[in-house]
Amino acid sequence: MSYLRARERGIITGELPPGPLNRITDVEGIKVGHCTVADGGLQTGVTVLMPPDNPFTEKLPAASHVVNGFGKTLGLVQIDELGTLETPVALCGTLNVGKIHDALAAYMLRRCRAEGVEVTSINPVVGECNDGFLSDIAARPCGEKELLAAIGDAKADFPLGAVGAGRGMCCHSLKGGIGSASRLVELDGKRYTVGVLTLTNHGRLHDLRLPDGIRPEADFIRKNGGAAPDKGSCIMLLATDAPLSDRQLKRVIRRMPVGLVRLGSFIGHGSGEICIGFSTANRVSIADQRDILPVEMINERKIDRFFRAAAEAAEESVLDSMLCAEPVTGFRGRHKDSLSEIFPD
Amino acid sequence: MSYLRARERGIITGELPPGPLNRITDVEGIKVGHCTVADGGLQTGVTVLMPPDNPFTEKLPAASHVVNGFGKTLGLVQIDELGTLETPVALCGTLNVGKIHDALAAYMLRRCRAEGVEVTSINPVVGECNDGFLSDIAARPCGEKELLAAIGDAKADFPLGAVGAGRGMCCHSLKGGIGSASRLVELDGKRYTVGVLTLTNHGRLHDLRLPDGIRPEADFIRKNGGAAPDKGSCIMLLATDAPLSDRQLKRVIRRMPVGLVRLGSFIGHGSGEICIGFSTANRVSIADQRDILPVEMINERKIDRFFRAAAEAAEESVLDSMLCAEPVTGFRGRHKDSLSEIFPD
Amino acid sequence: MSYLRARERGIITGELPPGPLNRITDVEGIKVGHCTVADGGLQTGVTVLMPPDNPFTEKLPAASHVVNGFGKTLGLVQIDELGTLETPVALCGTLNVGKIHDALAAYMLRRCRAEGVEVTSINPVVGECNDGFLSDIAARPCGEKELLAAIGDAKADFPLGAVGAGRGMCCHSLKGGIGSASRLVELDGKRYTVGVLTLTNHGRLHDLRLPDGIRPEADFIRKNGGAAPDKGSCIMLLATDAPLSDRQLKRVIRRMPVGLVRLGSFIGHGSGEICIGFSTANRVSIADQRDILPVEMINERKIDRFFRAAAEAAEESVLDSMLCAEPVTGFRGRHKDSLSEIFPD
Amino acid sequence: MSYLRARERGIITGELPPGPLNRITDVEGIKVGHCTVADGGLQTGVTVLMPPDNPFTEKLPAASHVVNGFGKTLGLVQIDELGTLETPVALCGTLNVGKIHDALAAYMLRRCRAEGVEVTSINPVVGECNDGFLSDIAARPCGEKELLAAIGDAKADFPLGAVGAGRGMCCHSLKGGIGSASRLVELDGKRYTVGVLTLTNHGRLHDLRLPDGIRPEADFIRKNGGAAPDKGSCIMLLATDAPLSDRQLKRVIRRMPVGLVRLGSFIGHGSGEICIGFSTANRVSIADQRDILPVEMINERKIDRFFRAAAEAAEESVLDSMLCAEPVTGFRGRHKDSLSEIFPD
Repeated sequence: MSYLRARERGIITGELPPGPLNRITDVEGIKVGHCTVADGGLQTGVTVLMPPDNPFTEKLPAASHVVNGFGKTLGLVQIDELGTLETPVALCGTLNVGKIHDALAAYMLRRCRAEGVEVTSINPVVGECNDGFLSDIAARPCGEKELLAAIGDAKADFPLGAVGAGRGMCCHSLKGGIGSASRLVELDGKRYTVGVLTLTNHGRLHDLRLPDGIRPEADFIRKNGGAAPDKGSCIMLLATDAPLSDRQLKRVIRRMPVGLVRLGSFIGHGSGEICIGFSTANRVSIADQRDILPVEMINERKIDRFFRAAAEAAEESVLDSMLCAEPVTGFRGRHKDSLSEIFPD
Repeated sequence: MSYLRARERGIITGELPPGPLNRITDVEGIKVGHCTVADGGLQTGVTVLMPPDNPFTEKLPAASHVVNGFGKTLGLVQIDELGTLETPVALCGTLNVGKIHDALAAYMLRRCRAEGVEVTSINPVVGECNDGFLSDIAARPCGEKELLAAIGDAKADFPLGAVGAGRGMCCHSLKGGIGSASRLVELDGKRYTVGVLTLTNHGRLHDLRLPDGIRPEADFIRKNGGAAPDKGSCIMLLATDAPLSDRQLKRVIRRMPVGLVRLGSFIGHGSGEICIGFSTANRVSIADQRDILPVEMINERKIDRFFRAAAEAAEESVLDSMLCAEPVTGFRGRHKDSLSEIFPD
Repeated sequence: MSYLRARERGIITGELPPGPLNRITDVEGIKVGHCTVADGGLQTGVTVLMPPDNPFTEKLPAASHVVNGFGKTLGLVQIDELGTLETPVALCGTLNVGKIHDALAAYMLRRCRAEGVEVTSINPVVGECNDGFLSDIAARPCGEKELLAAIGDAKADFPLGAVGAGRGMCCHSLKGGIGSASRLVELDGKRYTVGVLTLTNHGRLHDLRLPDGIRPEADFIRKNGGAAPDKGSCIMLLATDAPLSDRQLKRVIRRMPVGLVRLGSFIGHGSGEICIGFSTANRVSIADQRDILPVEMINERKIDRFFRAAAEAAEESVLDSMLCAEPVTGFRGRHKDSLSEIFPD
Repeated sequence: MSYLRARERGIITGELPPGPLNRITDVEGIKVGHCTVADGGLQTGVTVLMPPDNPFTEKLPAASHVVNGFGKTLGLVQIDELGTLETPVALCGTLNVGKIHDALAAYMLRRCRAEGVEVTSINPVVGECNDGFLSDIAARPCGEKELLAAIGDAKADFPLGAVGAGRGMCCHSLKGGIGSASRLVELDGKRYTVGVLTLTNHGRLHDLRLPDGIRPEADFIRKNGGAAPDKGSCIMLLATDAPLSDRQLKRVIRRMPVGLVRLGSFIGHGSGEICIGFSTANRVSIADQRDILPVEMINERKIDRFFRAAAEAAEESVLDSMLCAEPVTGFRGRHKDSLSEIFPD
């Protein structure tokens, strides 16, 4: 069994072209790192999305959208009020968010101090899904060490699947995890990138709809318990280098669930679906003393190409999170197979 | 060409059983009426959803959800604050909402006065889509006469397709209009109904995905201009006799867009997608003098069956709005074909 | 009895300086017009706020905020989604909003056509309070004629008090109506204006707290029935020439209720409190073909001065709406006295 | 100098009667505990509000409202979605929220396990204000030990002022901290309680307005640096034994800021004002297997008495947080005086 991405298998979602890595890191300056904990009953980890430069001193326009708020993502209140992101975004298992929140605060305090910036308040953003099926969730094994390892691992060409925060996740009753994809759009003759990263832990196999009408066989569905309830969550991160305002970002990220629905999700009760998006354009420096700041925004009439890009990239990202995930056996001997199994090598 | 519903053609969306009429009127006491204006360059009308009894004196638990707010639906502010619906819901063309709002206020004032109830404030709810492609939208031809005709026409077994407010609507570049569907769910061994009514005016033919992998041929797509931008809207109404609280209703109606997305929509910029839902249970009488009122709500852990019902019924409702719509020629000789054409008789 | 404004009486609210007219029209290009209906049992009218130029072709950054949504204000859904205002804002009595919505659509269609712009969709914004105590609200006497009269009357130095939409309003159990005030703030050494206009119809005399500890005597309170429930509403409009983004506008207008609370309101259940704000800077022309638009926004760290300006101007605006309002006798012989009575001439 | 409460000094805010303790603990079953850290440059702590019974197994109807989201309160996303609170509410300094979140999760896991309930997901709620002026905020000294100490300290007759999470807080440029108050309301002849607890860290002395026109002298204002910018926050918790639905709770808690504004706040940019409310009625047991649950709600027309109670109790609570707070000297020798100073003993 090989863990090829959807596009490598000839499965094309949507019509817009992807960037060179077909990952969120196609947006310049963004890196993603993992720390994977895979030790018997502990199948979990941390994934961190690093924006360019220091986001505390160069704040990024940002927005969040709660699709289904049965979740514990931390940091959304301030994003919504101020329209900015000021830390990396960390992802982990549900009950680990407190420790990772504290570790991310500590990391930023140190990093800012090293740059001569005193921080008395900061808003760490931490997303989560519940990996309690494959991992002993009450153990909360990830802390500062794991966060720093993930940060140290950050790179453009990062692995997908059962890694980092995705290690213990399940998606459509199979192995889920980390997915990513990107799309290119043009504005005034210049090329911009929309990148998506998903942590997938939602859906039922019974409901899964693959592109091109590909469908798992009944035996495979039965064997993988495909009609169990949807208790999961999906965290969807979007980054772009296009100058979208915070309101425009909010509109764009609201189209990411389109990708989930195309693959069969109906956004179940137990699935905390959260979207966060940011732009690397129009950063506001805390050193800027001007009262009035020049910025850019896109002409609202052109926003549909971003909607389409968000929907397509989210769909491909979820698909890749499953295709790239190896099978995992974890807590109490529980096991999840990979979607890759239904494809011939 | 015949205008059979999806289910009559053997196209089944989802797994839950529909009610006897497979319409929103399967919820007891609900009626729907149309007034169709089809006169050359005027292809428009009014559709009205009548709740049981007088909704002003017996207020209905209700909620709204704005999926994409590029629209002019009237009356949502109060629904959100008080969690109740107190008038019928009227639907019409975009620029006609003011006149229909006034007509609905007048109708309710008269109806309440006839029942000996003085009204000094009331919140008419009027939804709209833009039928300006097939109808001279600036003419605003619908007023009190048309609203009262629609109310007079209200019945359980109402027609679907290019009728009432749906007369001039376009969906996925074909003829859209009025659709409806219902689903049955069980709670504590008793059967409840979830009904949906949609006014469809959204999407592109190019993006249309039909159930069971049915797909229009390239020629048909080309002929019907399938890549024109999505400027439309879809109004989605949901009714149920199950005792959902206003918050629970809000969660349930948020799953109606799942039905649109399954058929290929990505919720385009120009498409004002609005959801409104209400329950016929737990009505609050304005005559009730008690300070504390006994009500019921469903156990939140059972809400997934309503999510699924809302998604499935919305998908089927949109599909039927297209399949049941005859082709229409209207304003400036513009024409829209019917989706029925792609099915053999 | 004379109807001097608060500042003319030496009552100063807050610390920021007002503009030359101490009205919303201190923001360049804004005009306000009234049409007053004062005929026995009809004590009502229309007030219209005219932005500079044609707001449909030069859209204004805008935001709304619902403080208490027991109200029927029309047009907020699209403001929230697109962050723009595209028509004048009209104010009237509660049950008249449908007619004025239609009249405002008709006016804009004509105006745009005269400028060679075809309109197939437009979002009229109409605010309301319930003037049913002093006026026969079921009559809905205002329509196209009254709206056009108000538009024709629009000027910078417009009257305050029991005029236009304010004709039949009651505030803190006394005569309410139209108030306005402005404040000057500085950014990068340049002066900007924040203007507020309020339609006041909220509060109880019993709860009224005037600046400087001035307090009506018990006899005056008793005589004016000061402990009747708060069923009213207050519409608060804010305009500025400072380049606030839609999100920043939303934050600023949320401080207008501070002015109401300072005068004693606790934002009662029956009082539909709605805020709408817009900027005359950063207008987006529909003729602009660029994909990316240069705009400005204020440095968030300087936003407090706008919060203070909004709070102070709203407080003074409500106060002036009462002080400038003459007593009115209307529907069924009902009467409301003026707050001016408690001040010596 | 003595630290009498406002009411003991004859300062009465509002007209409704308080409960016997004039604290949030007048709502039956609620307890509040503190752990105070007062050690040189560390002046901080933890305060915890304990609902009756185990809130995870007996979930409480709840709502949150973000007045100004420049803050880091954790746990609101799920409260808004599900309308329930399932843990105690902990309060602490801004950068300590991650550790306290983790400690609260650990406490609940243990407590539930001891009751034989397995927990795989839980939503700890942690509010914060920035105590960085008086305490070394980067140190984050509070963790599991401090949380457990606060829980162990929980009682009905808990101290107010510079204690627990309130130890390092500043309010209106003076010493702030923990305040509380309650109000009694009647429904159908039965008495219900509305209790408020505030963690106060907002406002400027320059803006402070005390009841009855009491005003600090200019010298006192000058000495205490009264015109420094408002960077603070205020967390406002409300509890009641009245059967308010989650929507009704949301409406009620939105009136708590009225109390802040009456004392002079204009809800400054830097001040993260957050409201959380819950009811001890209508608890939903996770053991309840029924699909449909009987509940109660109040008749919406009677909700004004709760609005008034929330506003009055919040005002008194903020006032008491200042009057009961002793002066504190902390980080870098910084000092805050007490409002008590301006009152003769």
